[in-house]
Amino acid sequence: MNTTDTDTCPIDMMDTIQSNNYPIYFENSLGELAKFIDSGRYSRFFVLTDENTAKYCLPLLREKLGNPDNFDIIEINSGEESKDIDFCIGVWKMLIDFGADRQSLLINLGGGVISDLGGFAASTFKRGIDFVHVPTTLLSQVDASVGGKTGIDIDSIKNIIGTFTQPKAVFIEYRFLLSLPARQILSGTAEMLKHGLICDAAYWNLLKESDLNNPTADLIYRSVAIKNKIVLEDPHEKNIRKALNFGHTIGHAIETYSLLNDEYSLSHGEAIAIGMICEAWLSYKKTGLSAADLAEVTKVLSDLYPRYDLKSEYNDTLLGFMLKDKKNQNGKINCTLLSAIGQFSIDNICTNEELLEGLGYYAGW
Amino acid sequence: MNTTDTDTCPIDMMDTIQSNNYPIYFENSLGELAKFIDSGRYSRFFVLTDENTAKYCLPLLREKLGNPDNFDIIEINSGEESKDIDFCIGVWKMLIDFGADRQSLLINLGGGVISDLGGFAASTFKRGIDFVHVPTTLLSQVDASVGGKTGIDIDSIKNIIGTFTQPKAVFIEYRFLLSLPARQILSGTAEMLKHGLICDAAYWNLLKESDLNNPTADLIYRSVAIKNKIVLEDPHEKNIRKALNFGHTIGHAIETYSLLNDEYSLSHGEAIAIGMICEAWLSYKKTGLSAADLAEVTKVLSDLYPRYDLKSEYNDTLLGFMLKDKKNQNGKINCTLLSAIGQFSIDNICTNEELLEGLGYYAGW
Repeated sequence: MNTTDTDTCPIDMMDTIQSNNYPIYFENSLGELAKFIDSGRYSRFFVLTDENTAKYCLPLLREKLGNPDNFDIIEINSGEESKDIDFCIGVWKMLIDFGADRQSLLINLGGGVISDLGGFAASTFKRGIDFVHVPTTLLSQVDASVGGKTGIDIDSIKNIIGTFTQPKAVFIEYRFLLSLPARQILSGTAEMLKHGLICDAAYWNLLKESDLNNPTADLIYRSVAIKNKIVLEDPHEKNIRKALNFGHTIGHAIETYSLLNDEYSLSHGEAIAIGMICEAWLSYKKTGLSAADLAEVTKVLSDLYPRYDLKSEYNDTLLGFMLKDKKNQNGKINCTLLSAIGQFSIDNICTNEELLEGLGYYAGW
Repeated sequence: MNTTDTDTCPIDMMDTIQSNNYPIYFENSLGELAKFIDSGRYSRFFVLTDENTAKYCLPLLREKLGNPDNFDIIEINSGEESKDIDFCIGVWKMLIDFGADRQSLLINLGGGVISDLGGFAASTFKRGIDFVHVPTTLLSQVDASVGGKTGIDIDSIKNIIGTFTQPKAVFIEYRFLLSLPARQILSGTAEMLKHGLICDAAYWNLLKESDLNNPTADLIYRSVAIKNKIVLEDPHEKNIRKALNFGHTIGHAIETYSLLNDEYSLSHGEAIAIGMICEAWLSYKKTGLSAADLAEVTKVLSDLYPRYDLKSEYNDTLLGFMLKDKKNQNGKINCTLLSAIGQFSIDNICTNEELLEGLGYYAGW
């Protein structure tokens, strides 16, 4: 990705997206943030960062905001480990120590960990203070920052604690992606591919033909628009929002396993890509995905993401994680599958045997 | 209090109160709970208790529900210490270990600690499961169980973390009060007196003439109705709900001080009674409470509650606690006061000097 990409992307076509009572800005987004802050609604400002965004993104933010002096910075370590409840308590205590009142605004400057954790911390501090997201990774731009889910982990169980709380605004700044390593870009691309797979075959076809190591701003815009349309229809995940869980039942289990066991853990997108291949196989077996579509999904994802050595001795542990998945009902594992490329199917109960077959399809046992 | 009180109270006049999308049952309340549970909406049931309610209240609950076998009990220690985030993590972990899914119901059987903590744990577990309150103390019946506030403490700062989340129903069972010690009854009476002071002079006069060590069910009903009317008008405490904070800015600070320093801590009601005397003095100085009303409030509360030895060397610590109060704005301490008995006045900024004078009025420095 280089600056030419930014300059040539059709940003004049990217109108602000209206979500659930909040705007998602694309054009001149940091300028919009400056206006939002100048609105006079807030007594104090807190920026939640990690060491990476403090280094690579905070200077631009400060500059765009005119180097304000009424900002306090709360910095956490980067990485999923920081989403643990212990770090959340740390954020709450810093807000207490800084004297944050109910008219304070928390600005979440970072990836999904920052927006999920910051959103939860803000939504519960003094029974809720306002927060906005400034997502700095591709993954958080197309996924975590939109939809009003906040979440933290306990004992490595992802998002087991959280709320449904909308940010007051989201500011998507394409320039932040320019400093990202390729692997982080690909982590976000997996969610973009998912958006095509679950409800937009034309978008899937467009993505297939695109350079997914360097997605353009208009592709990002289209992903956000798809996700936004879904969450607006079903903010609390009672029905069609479950579409977004495609690949995530198995993918989350693999991600948790890797986080706990691998020296170099899988990224979220890498794990979800594996999950999507496994769940495409379940879709082929259970919900009518054609053999040709299964082959296509498998090939696109396998070509894009590194192979993971999924051993059959992990099975019990992986099933254990899946059993703790929030989407389950009555102890039964509940998957979102595909009936075709571009068509999702929710609430499919899968047996342990089926899930293991799905894992086996990927692993080649 | 004896069973005759229960039998003679006019319970046929106590219609179910409709709150913010949920009912508050008074008549045959445990029978209503049994119906609620039989509705088929829930996959699993969890009862949050402490060692007291497990002993004195759970047997009646079980009997009324027909000794169900699909109930798991989560028991915590009684007392404000159990509202700390560490105990909340314990509740979350037990829900995880028991395999609670999103269709689970949490039944909060206990006083304010149980309903505040249980409400918070449920409102954030898997981004929110349903919960109901079965308040077993007078204080929780007339205060904590109505209004949709949940909360936990960090570093003894009360309710610093919480959500606004409504229970699905509240079941007020008068019989649970019969096993309570007198001091616990009086702790609840303080909130009932506050309801009269802030917006119902006739109710205040009625309470003055009643045996407040044994409040009747219709007095309780009237307090719940007053609180409910206020919270329905302003569920998120943007304006008139602040009326309920009368006595609580100073009262909470004294309560926290006592909790941290006294071998036998003040009860909530005892601390709030002191807070109301101090804030009645502030009301006399700042918002037009007459000298006669100030004298009346002081006498009624002083006659009912034991004297607390409030020393001037506590002042800095108490002011420190008040500065962390959620109601503050821009670092200024914000009190709800009275303009007359039965008339509240919100958003009164008080200086440290004024607050110390209020403390001195009670202490007699």
